[in-house]
Amino acid sequence: MSKAFETFYQSVEKGMALQTAMVLFEWDNETLAPKEAEPYTTRMIGSLSEQYREIMTSEEMKKLAAACREEGGLSGPEAAIVREVEEEIEKLDCIPPREYRDFAELTARAAGIWAEAKREKDFQKFAPVLGEIVNYQKKFASYRAKEGQKLYDVLLDSYEKGFNMETLDAFFGELKEELVPLLHEAAERSGNVDTSFLSAEYPLTAQEDAARFLAEYVGFDFGKGVLAVSAHPFTTNLHNHDVRITTHYGQRIDSSIFSVIHETGHALYELGIRDDLTQTPVGQGTSMGMHECQSRFFENIIGRSRAFWEPVYDTIAEIFGAPLNQVPLDTFLAAVNQTVPGLIRTEADELSYALHVMVRYEIEKMLIEGDTSIEELPEIWNKKYEEYLGVRPQNDAEGILQDIHWSQGSFGYFPSYALGSAFGAQFYFHMKKEMDIDSLLREGKLDVIRNYLKEHIHQYGKLKTSRELLKEVTGEDFSPKYYIAYLKEKYGKKER
Amino acid sequence: MSKAFETFYQSVEKGMALQTAMVLFEWDNETLAPKEAEPYTTRMIGSLSEQYREIMTSEEMKKLAAACREEGGLSGPEAAIVREVEEEIEKLDCIPPREYRDFAELTARAAGIWAEAKREKDFQKFAPVLGEIVNYQKKFASYRAKEGQKLYDVLLDSYEKGFNMETLDAFFGELKEELVPLLHEAAERSGNVDTSFLSAEYPLTAQEDAARFLAEYVGFDFGKGVLAVSAHPFTTNLHNHDVRITTHYGQRIDSSIFSVIHETGHALYELGIRDDLTQTPVGQGTSMGMHECQSRFFENIIGRSRAFWEPVYDTIAEIFGAPLNQVPLDTFLAAVNQTVPGLIRTEADELSYALHVMVRYEIEKMLIEGDTSIEELPEIWNKKYEEYLGVRPQNDAEGILQDIHWSQGSFGYFPSYALGSAFGAQFYFHMKKEMDIDSLLREGKLDVIRNYLKEHIHQYGKLKTSRELLKEVTGEDFSPKYYIAYLKEKYGKKER
Repeated sequence: MSKAFETFYQSVEKGMALQTAMVLFEWDNETLAPKEAEPYTTRMIGSLSEQYREIMTSEEMKKLAAACREEGGLSGPEAAIVREVEEEIEKLDCIPPREYRDFAELTARAAGIWAEAKREKDFQKFAPVLGEIVNYQKKFASYRAKEGQKLYDVLLDSYEKGFNMETLDAFFGELKEELVPLLHEAAERSGNVDTSFLSAEYPLTAQEDAARFLAEYVGFDFGKGVLAVSAHPFTTNLHNHDVRITTHYGQRIDSSIFSVIHETGHALYELGIRDDLTQTPVGQGTSMGMHECQSRFFENIIGRSRAFWEPVYDTIAEIFGAPLNQVPLDTFLAAVNQTVPGLIRTEADELSYALHVMVRYEIEKMLIEGDTSIEELPEIWNKKYEEYLGVRPQNDAEGILQDIHWSQGSFGYFPSYALGSAFGAQFYFHMKKEMDIDSLLREGKLDVIRNYLKEHIHQYGKLKTSRELLKEVTGEDFSPKYYIAYLKEKYGKKER
Repeated sequence: MSKAFETFYQSVEKGMALQTAMVLFEWDNETLAPKEAEPYTTRMIGSLSEQYREIMTSEEMKKLAAACREEGGLSGPEAAIVREVEEEIEKLDCIPPREYRDFAELTARAAGIWAEAKREKDFQKFAPVLGEIVNYQKKFASYRAKEGQKLYDVLLDSYEKGFNMETLDAFFGELKEELVPLLHEAAERSGNVDTSFLSAEYPLTAQEDAARFLAEYVGFDFGKGVLAVSAHPFTTNLHNHDVRITTHYGQRIDSSIFSVIHETGHALYELGIRDDLTQTPVGQGTSMGMHECQSRFFENIIGRSRAFWEPVYDTIAEIFGAPLNQVPLDTFLAAVNQTVPGLIRTEADELSYALHVMVRYEIEKMLIEGDTSIEELPEIWNKKYEEYLGVRPQNDAEGILQDIHWSQGSFGYFPSYALGSAFGAQFYFHMKKEMDIDSLLREGKLDVIRNYLKEHIHQYGKLKTSRELLKEVTGEDFSPKYYIAYLKEKYGKKER
C-alpha cells in the first residue's frame, strides 16, 4: 500500500465508521426502537451525518485524495476508492451547507406531510412541499450538471451510472409497446385463478419458520446475517459479515414468502462482496439497479419458477399446514404467478411491475425537465394508469401518494426498479447458455447459481458499474430485448 | 444560554453522538448481531472511539471549556456539563495515546484468554495477562493521583465519587462482623425450603409474557424502551426516551423474574433523567453504586417482599401455569428468599451477596496497594470464600475466574455493587418515615414509590454525586447501619 494511500485511508475509515453507525441507527429504528425515541435519536443521527460531511469534505481529505492520485502506483481497488471518495466530495461539496441543511429539514418535514396527506387521501396537502422539493432537486442537479447535461440526466446518473433519458426513453418505449397488450391478454387468462389459500390464516410461528427456511434455502447465511420484522421489508448491511433482511407477516402469505426471497437476493449481493473491499467506499453493491437485479432475479425468475419449487414445495406446505398442505404445486404456482393489473406498485405482479415504474419515470421527467404544474399531477397519474394498466385510482392514496420516495427527495430512483428486472433477464438468458438452470433448481443446487453471481457480479462491489458488468458478463451492452422476451415467453399465449 | 457555552456545546454534542452510537453497537452486539460480524464491526467501533477521543481532547474543546468558565454566568446544569467534560478530558488525556491503545489491545486480547482459562478452569493461563492489566491500572492511576492519594483510592473514586478505602474498610468491616454470623444462622434455617417449582419447565411464551408483565408492573415504559434477550441481563440507554433492558430464559424462573425487576430498576433511573439533561454528559445515572442502588432496591427490598407479590402473584402464577399456579404465595416467597451461601456472585442470595463483593474488594486492594503475587490469588480467593461464606471452590472457574471484570481492566468497580445495596437500605429506612411502603405495594401503587425516587434521585442525573444525594434525601451521610439493620430484620431470628 502506498504511503499516501495509507494516510488517506485513515481519514476515509472515519467516514466509513460514521456511515456504518448511521446504517445501524436506521436498522434499529425500523425494526426495534421504541416509539417515543425518534426525535431524540434523530438529533444524534443529525450530528453523525454532519460529522461525516465535515470529514469527507475537509481540506485534508481533498489534499490526501489528490496526493494519492499524484503519487500514482495505486492498485485497482485503491484507485476506485479514491475515485469514489472524490465523487462523494463533489456530491456533498457542490451544495452550499445552508441549502443542504434546509433541504434536510424540508424532507424531514415532508415525511410527516406526505403521511398525513396519504391518510387523508388528499394530494393537494402535499403539493406545496413537493413543489419545493422538486425545485431543490433541480437546483442541486444544476450544481452538478456538466456542460450541456440535462438536469434529469444528472439525477438518473447518480442512481445508475451510464444511464440517461435517451437509454430510458428507448427502454420504456419498447416496454410500453410490447407489455401493454401482453398484460391485457394475460390478465384475461388468469382471471379465475384460485388464490384463497394464500389469504387463509396460518400460525405466526409457521410463517416465521417458513421465512427462515426459505432464506436459508436461497442462501442466506445466518452466521453473517439477521432476519427481523419491519413494516416494509428491506435489506441493509454493516459490512459483508453483517447483512440484515426484514419481512412482515399477517398479510397474504405470498407477500412474506416472496419478500424473503427478494431480500435474500439483495443480501447475497452484499454477502458476496470481496473481503478486501468491504468497509471501504467501494464495498457495496454497485448501483440501485444492479441490486434490484439480484433481488428480482431471485424473487421472480428463480422464485416463481416451477423448477425452484419442485424440491421444496412439500416442505414449505408442511410448515404452513392447512390449507396450504392440501394445495397441489400447480395451483400454488398459478396463484403466485397470477397477473392482475392493479393500482399499487409494491403489490404488482411481475408482468405489470415495469408499467408502474414507467408512470413514475414519465412524471419525473415532466417535473424536472418540463413545466408541468404540481397540481395537475393526480390527473396525469390517473390517466396514465388507465392507459397502461387499465385501472383508475379512486383516490390519491392509491394513486399518486402511494410511494414515499418523492417526499424523501428521491428523483431518478424509480427507473432502477425496472432496469433491475431487465438486467436480470439479460443475465438469465446468458446464464442459460452456461448452465441448465432448471435442472440445477430441481436438484436444489442453488449454490451453483449463487456462486456464478458471486464470481461474476457480487464480489466486485463498486469496482465496475452495472453497465460494465452487463457488458463483461453477457458480452453485450444493456438491451431491453431479453426482458421482453422473458415476459413474453412466460406470460404470452402458450400456443407459440 | 451563554454564547461561549453554545459554541462549546456544539462540540460536546459531537462527542455525545459518537458515544450514543457506541452504545447502540454494544446493545446490538449483545442482543442480535450475527456471530461472524464481530471482528469487522469492532474495527468500526474502534474508529468511533478514536474519533470520540480526538474530539473530546482536542485543543478546541479545552479552549471552549475554559472560555465557558471564564465567561461565567453558567446555569447549574451548564456548569455541571463543563465540569464533566473537563473531567473526561483529564481522564482521557492523562494517559499517553500509545499506552491507551496498547491497553485497549491488551484487554481485547485478555477477554479471549480469560474465557479460555475459565473454560479450562486454569487460572495460571490468565495470570500473566492479569499481571499486565494490574500494572497498567496502577500506572494509569498514578497519572491521575493527586498528591498523596493512594492508587486504589483513585480507582474507587472514578466509579464512586467521594468513596475511598477508608470508607470502604469501615463499611466492609461492619459487614463482615455482622453478616458472617447472620448468614450461617439464616442458611441453617432455610435449608429445607422447596424450590423445585422454580426449576420446572414452563413454556417460553409464558416466561416472556411474565417478564413483560412484571417490567410494566414495576414501571417500565414500553413506549420508551425495549425488552430483549441476551446471555447476561443488562440495561443500556441511548437517552431518556430509549432505555433498553434484557433478560434470559431457560434457567430457574426466578432468574428471569428478578433480573427483569432488577433491570427495570436501572431503567427507571435512566427514564427519570430530566429532559434538559438527557443527551448531555450529565444526563446519566450519577454512579455505578447509585445505579445498583435503584436496581437492587426494586429487585430485593421491593421485589422480594410479601407486600409486592400480594396483588400480582396470582396473575403471574396463572401466566406461568403449572406447577407454579399450584404453589401458595408463602411457598414462593420462602423459595425466592432462600439463603444458601454459594460460590457464584451473580447467583447469590440477598444476604450473602455483599460478602462475595467483599472478597473481591479485599483482593483488589491487595493487588493495587500491596505486592501480592498474582499466582497466589486462587488460594487467597478460596480461603476467603471458606472463611466468609463457608464454601470452597473446587476449581478456578467457580472461583477466581468467575467474573469478567478484571479482564476488562475494571478495578474499583466491584465495591459499588455492595454500596448500591447499602444506599438502597438507607433510602428505604428514610422513605418509610414518609410513606407506608407496604400498604402502597399491597395496593399496587408503585407509582408513588417511583415518583419519589424520580423526584429525589433520578431526575438529577450527574448533577449530584451519590454521596450528596444520600445526604440531601436522608439528611445523613452514607452509613452502613441501615443495610445491616435491614438484613438483620429480614434474615435474623424472628423471636426478636
